[in-house]
Amino acid sequence: MVEYDGGPFSGWQWQDDQPSVQGTIEAALARLESDLPRIAAAGRTDAGVHGRGQVCHCDMAREWKAETLMNALNHHMRPAPVAIVAAAPVADDWHARFSASERRYLFRILNRRARATLEAGHVWQVQRALDADRMAEGAARLVGRYDFTTFRSTMCQAASPVKTLDAAEVEVVETGAGRELHLRFRARSFLHNQVRSFVGTLERVGSGAWTPEDVTRALEARDRAACGPVAPPQGLYLTGVGYDDDPFSG
Amino acid sequence: MVEYDGGPFSGWQWQDDQPSVQGTIEAALARLESDLPRIAAAGRTDAGVHGRGQVCHCDMAREWKAETLMNALNHHMRPAPVAIVAAAPVADDWHARFSASERRYLFRILNRRARATLEAGHVWQVQRALDADRMAEGAARLVGRYDFTTFRSTMCQAASPVKTLDAAEVEVVETGAGRELHLRFRARSFLHNQVRSFVGTLERVGSGAWTPEDVTRALEARDRAACGPVAPPQGLYLTGVGYDDDPFSG
Repeated sequence: MVEYDGGPFSGWQWQDDQPSVQGTIEAALARLESDLPRIAAAGRTDAGVHGRGQVCHCDMAREWKAETLMNALNHHMRPAPVAIVAAAPVADDWHARFSASERRYLFRILNRRARATLEAGHVWQVQRALDADRMAEGAARLVGRYDFTTFRSTMCQAASPVKTLDAAEVEVVETGAGRELHLRFRARSFLHNQVRSFVGTLERVGSGAWTPEDVTRALEARDRAACGPVAPPQGLYLTGVGYDDDPFSG
Repeated sequence: MVEYDGGPFSGWQWQDDQPSVQGTIEAALARLESDLPRIAAAGRTDAGVHGRGQVCHCDMAREWKAETLMNALNHHMRPAPVAIVAAAPVADDWHARFSASERRYLFRILNRRARATLEAGHVWQVQRALDADRMAEGAARLVGRYDFTTFRSTMCQAASPVKTLDAAEVEVVETGAGRELHLRFRARSFLHNQVRSFVGTLERVGSGAWTPEDVTRALEARDRAACGPVAPPQGLYLTGVGYDDDPFSG
């Protein structure tokens, strides 16, 4: 299980000329064994998106004690803001991406007039007051099995735009200095930019520019042009991945 | 009311050759009016210590609408991680420091083996497992009116080492990836380095190196040398200041 601050990275995915989370972990693995295959992750997060409970796997040549491997990787990744926070052995046919039965995302909106200081880079700041109840009403309209073409990046490589969204919730968190909205989404899998497209659209509802019914109209349009603005990446966290055969449970 | 990330600053207090929170706010004020006096704050936090509910005041020459002043200052402070999150007019004899009847501090310990990523710079990371109950027992022994010489920096300029600590609590917060200990302290006023000296000492108790009784022995020694290590600044937050005549209530 991997935690990272997405800020300094071009995203999860390895790129030959830019720092990536995958590249950081693979460089540390290369200090331990040679000629390892690429690692695979449950969610290939975009540039700036954070990991809280990202999961990846690697086929090691040697038998490693999970804790030893974790500590060695964390040592070699210093000072990059990437840490292995849990490790476990898995069956040969277990795959971090293909075995996953659920992905969970959190999107944090700092809803206040004053600029973010301590949360800078970790929230999307929206200055105008947002109506969380309206946003929750809009979010509920997205739950279910739909053609999500409207909320899918034109770069999306998924075979089908039909997905089942299992949950979309809006929680208001009053903090010491301001107010955060936490938007949580849960599904077996997501399309590229789906969560950020949801959030940008729901922000339009919260600000009063859209009605909750407009969300249904946008969904039914099955047209990328019907989507609200795409929310920026720095508020988004991959918080967890579910597996029927969860290597971290028990 | 001021929020700031203490990381890039040499502390609250203005220094002619280093960035400070006070200097950042005063530079923004200087864009609005000339020849202003220095601003005064409830707590002069050290280098690296964060502000969540710091309070400062300034004698302005013109009559400002609180919100206009706040927005103008926030505009001029960009991109420094300092924000005015609330502003209010006060009586001429009201003083952010001398009128304060209570200061509240939070200290965050990230208690896990893997290095902090998303929380880097905002927590003190302790790798060995800490016993929160033992720490709470140790903390309770500090509550009351005592000569706190043991927990006072040798640089402290307070007239007397006798202070009354009103509360010292330890809360365990299970987060998505790890465990945080939140230590909260409340008093009319604190000595220099008092909270960090408390936390460093309580960490010794949590790790098993000290017993809770050793905290009482250290307190009663009234000797700086009897103190545990001083905890690092990045876990410390000035979270709030209390006033009998609170400008922000109502």
